[in-house]
Amino acid sequence: MDDFLNVIFRRRSIRKFTEAPVPEDVLIDLLRAGMAGPSAMNAQPWEFVVITDEEILKKFRTSLMFAKMKYTAVICVCGSPRVQKNKAGDRFWVQDCSAATENILLAATALGLGSVWIGVYPIVMYVRQVRSILNIPDDVTPLGLIGLGYPAEPKEARTQYEEKRVHWQKYAPEPEKRHHLFKRRKNEEVLENTQEE
Amino acid sequence: MDDFLNVIFRRRSIRKFTEAPVPEDVLIDLLRAGMAGPSAMNAQPWEFVVITDEEILKKFRTSLMFAKMKYTAVICVCGSPRVQKNKAGDRFWVQDCSAATENILLAATALGLGSVWIGVYPIVMYVRQVRSILNIPDDVTPLGLIGLGYPAEPKEARTQYEEKRVHWQKYAPEPEKRHHLFKRRKNEEVLENTQEE
Repeated sequence: MDDFLNVIFRRRSIRKFTEAPVPEDVLIDLLRAGMAGPSAMNAQPWEFVVITDEEILKKFRTSLMFAKMKYTAVICVCGSPRVQKNKAGDRFWVQDCSAATENILLAATALGLGSVWIGVYPIVMYVRQVRSILNIPDDVTPLGLIGLGYPAEPKEARTQYEEKRVHWQKYAPEPEKRHHLFKRRKNEEVLENTQEE
Repeated sequence: MDDFLNVIFRRRSIRKFTEAPVPEDVLIDLLRAGMAGPSAMNAQPWEFVVITDEEILKKFRTSLMFAKMKYTAVICVCGSPRVQKNKAGDRFWVQDCSAATENILLAATALGLGSVWIGVYPIVMYVRQVRSILNIPDDVTPLGLIGLGYPAEPKEARTQYEEKRVHWQKYAPEPEKRHHLFKRRKNEEVLENTQEE
């Protein structure tokens, strides 16, 4: 299904937006996409804060270095032991919430929106600021913000595929066995000893 | 684009596969999808090991508790300081590699494959085992394995949307200000002092 891969290639970080608001039903579609994501042992260790209030959006722009874009909506994806269905979330919440985030970014692209992923966790200062702005309790951790709006900049579809990043069957050929190295460094007597192993 | 959301809903963890191999050009399409993913400051801190060799696949099945399925191919997604384009990867590689993983899972679904995400990092024993089987150096970290093959079990499309996981504008209503609490606990004199602040 080429159309689908094309949405993956069309998802780009969009940092310029029109003033058009994102309708509530579109935001809910994005959340449905996010919550369809995989999670370790299906723990679903996620909660979401959806912000369309301009006063709050302004606070992100003034307090967070990488959040200055003029998005008209933000979804804050949070890791949450309060709602996770089992303990797998304790170790895998970053991965689970990242998959949910990627689903939201892709769904946004498919629905004609622009989006930008603003990393929050594990930068302690950003976590503290987002917690404070959104009144998030200490046991819930904002992983990132997704800035959303209708795009006001064109970006071309692309992959960044590079062959050098791909290894087939193994990362590297077999290393020499440790006792080989050992043999080279030791004298004949030791060599004989190791051969008896 | 409803079709697209539908692929997101159709992505399910598939654990039963036919014996049909996954063609190399399909595997490369999956890698193109993975490397189209977002990464913090575009650091692209990822490398991939693609395994179709049955001897190696067997080693996963015998040594990793959650990897016993009969996939015909595996993509191991690794975080790698060796190839990352800047230092953002040091802090965000788990999120970046998770987004790449989700892209691969979704592309697999769109291309008619079944897939399952097998978590490796941060379980120290699994990381060690995968490093050993694939001969991955110590500075490169296997985040997870993606088991792939043609599906031999039907699963229904779904979201797991739950309204209780969504908060609008703020996570919780404003807490009472700290000096309010303070006032309640202290006597009149202290109260007057705090009012002068």
